[in-house]
Amino acid sequence: MKKVIGIGLGLIGGSMLLSLKRFWSKAEFLGQDINKDHLDKAIDLGIINKEAQKQDFKNADLVIVSIPVDIAPNVIHELLNQIGSNTLVIDTGSTKTKLCEHLKNHPKREQFMATHPIAGTEFSRPQATFSELFDHKTMIVCEVEKTNLKLQQLAIQCFEKMQMKMRYMNPVSHNKHMAYVSHLSHISSFMLGKTVIDKEENERNIFDLAGSGFESTVRLAKSNPQTWTPIFKQNKTFVLEALSEYINNLKNFETALKQDDFEQLYKEMNNTNVVKDILKGIHL
Amino acid sequence: MKKVIGIGLGLIGGSMLLSLKRFWSKAEFLGQDINKDHLDKAIDLGIINKEAQKQDFKNADLVIVSIPVDIAPNVIHELLNQIGSNTLVIDTGSTKTKLCEHLKNHPKREQFMATHPIAGTEFSRPQATFSELFDHKTMIVCEVEKTNLKLQQLAIQCFEKMQMKMRYMNPVSHNKHMAYVSHLSHISSFMLGKTVIDKEENERNIFDLAGSGFESTVRLAKSNPQTWTPIFKQNKTFVLEALSEYINNLKNFETALKQDDFEQLYKEMNNTNVVKDILKGIHL
Repeated sequence: MKKVIGIGLGLIGGSMLLSLKRFWSKAEFLGQDINKDHLDKAIDLGIINKEAQKQDFKNADLVIVSIPVDIAPNVIHELLNQIGSNTLVIDTGSTKTKLCEHLKNHPKREQFMATHPIAGTEFSRPQATFSELFDHKTMIVCEVEKTNLKLQQLAIQCFEKMQMKMRYMNPVSHNKHMAYVSHLSHISSFMLGKTVIDKEENERNIFDLAGSGFESTVRLAKSNPQTWTPIFKQNKTFVLEALSEYINNLKNFETALKQDDFEQLYKEMNNTNVVKDILKGIHL
Repeated sequence: MKKVIGIGLGLIGGSMLLSLKRFWSKAEFLGQDINKDHLDKAIDLGIINKEAQKQDFKNADLVIVSIPVDIAPNVIHELLNQIGSNTLVIDTGSTKTKLCEHLKNHPKREQFMATHPIAGTEFSRPQATFSELFDHKTMIVCEVEKTNLKLQQLAIQCFEKMQMKMRYMNPVSHNKHMAYVSHLSHISSFMLGKTVIDKEENERNIFDLAGSGFESTVRLAKSNPQTWTPIFKQNKTFVLEALSEYINNLKNFETALKQDDFEQLYKEMNNTNVVKDILKGIHL
């Protein structure tokens, strides 16, 4: 690869560029960001060499789009109109159904690959980027058969260099699973944070009394609402399904506690302890 | 100190002994555990020298009780009957109201100190112990004025060696704050784990698709139900209050999402982002 462009230079997009730079150190890395401060910061931090210009898209090898999921469909649609015939475009968004639907009849659909790296932190912006973010993580690819073979190979070469595990899914399955294993966790964490903040008006009490357990469960409440509002919007149906089941489980726990049914509480917690074994799998 | 006894040799009790051993390396460390395997393991791991016998309590300097909160009141009541006149007894339980109430008229109440170290991991048993668990963490002390001055000094000497931050509260305030910053986190995490496990019958999907965000929010669902069932039982009123507020917040989020009120979702998440600053305080 000789030219790589990042559109959106935050945690995911910026880290993806840094990651690739390790293996294609002589390539030109360019970028665009709607936020001028982020663009400047990305240049300062050496994430990109300079801002990408319109003509750069004609001969870019790879364009990585990492922007909020509500604006991604139109941006990528327009981008496909501008790229050269050998350019691959990938996105990294947390929802896939609307994007794939929006692009399905684009004459250059085969130059696009819908991808979602299962990696991130609760931080955002170029300052949060690091080159190892995706190493050994899972990369979900949707509708892989719609991307032309040569460009598939380029993408896979990139992801294999980072030793990512590839998983192939259709967009609907992707969105459904993500509602449970990712999007619901964010809601649970945001609302836990809200509940405690509303109660503990005197913040000193939280400083002093909260331990690592609270910190762990509330970590995702630091996430960027600009990223997450459009994710919940785009995945509304599955998120509502997951949220409703979560609320029901909490209500059942509440009922058992109200009725002093401690055997039931014990049983539920004991059954859920199986997450020990499931979570081990994440690190395999 | 010449003789320290631990009753209950799991994560908290065992780690407390290991922690003190660093500063009183010549003292005798003895222990008891209702589970014979845990007792043997604690000896194997060098947490204690041998099992404590009845006569050991007569001349022990310190007895640390780290057992489920439902049995602690009776065990400590009986223990106070057995100790010598210079022995200090402390407990480490996550609830304090019933314990303090139960012991308030005991003739040796002044030889007891009700403490709660804000430290732990999601693991249990002697195998999970480590000597640094309490270093720089918060130690809550309830009804400190009821412990005699000389024994207060001994306790504070121990906690200061571990560089713990001391916080003094009454048992009711303790239980109320803990319902929000600790007990609710556990319920939120257990029920999140349950929701995802129930849905994802094929566990491979969780292995592959869950990232560090899910792992973080569900970490506490690995906790021991034997520890947590009696905590929820003893702190039922405040836990129900916190849980009800949490469920309401989740329902409001659900309603806003159903009604496409994305401005409201954004606002709630943005307001909750303040946890960034609050959590920094935990590490100060």
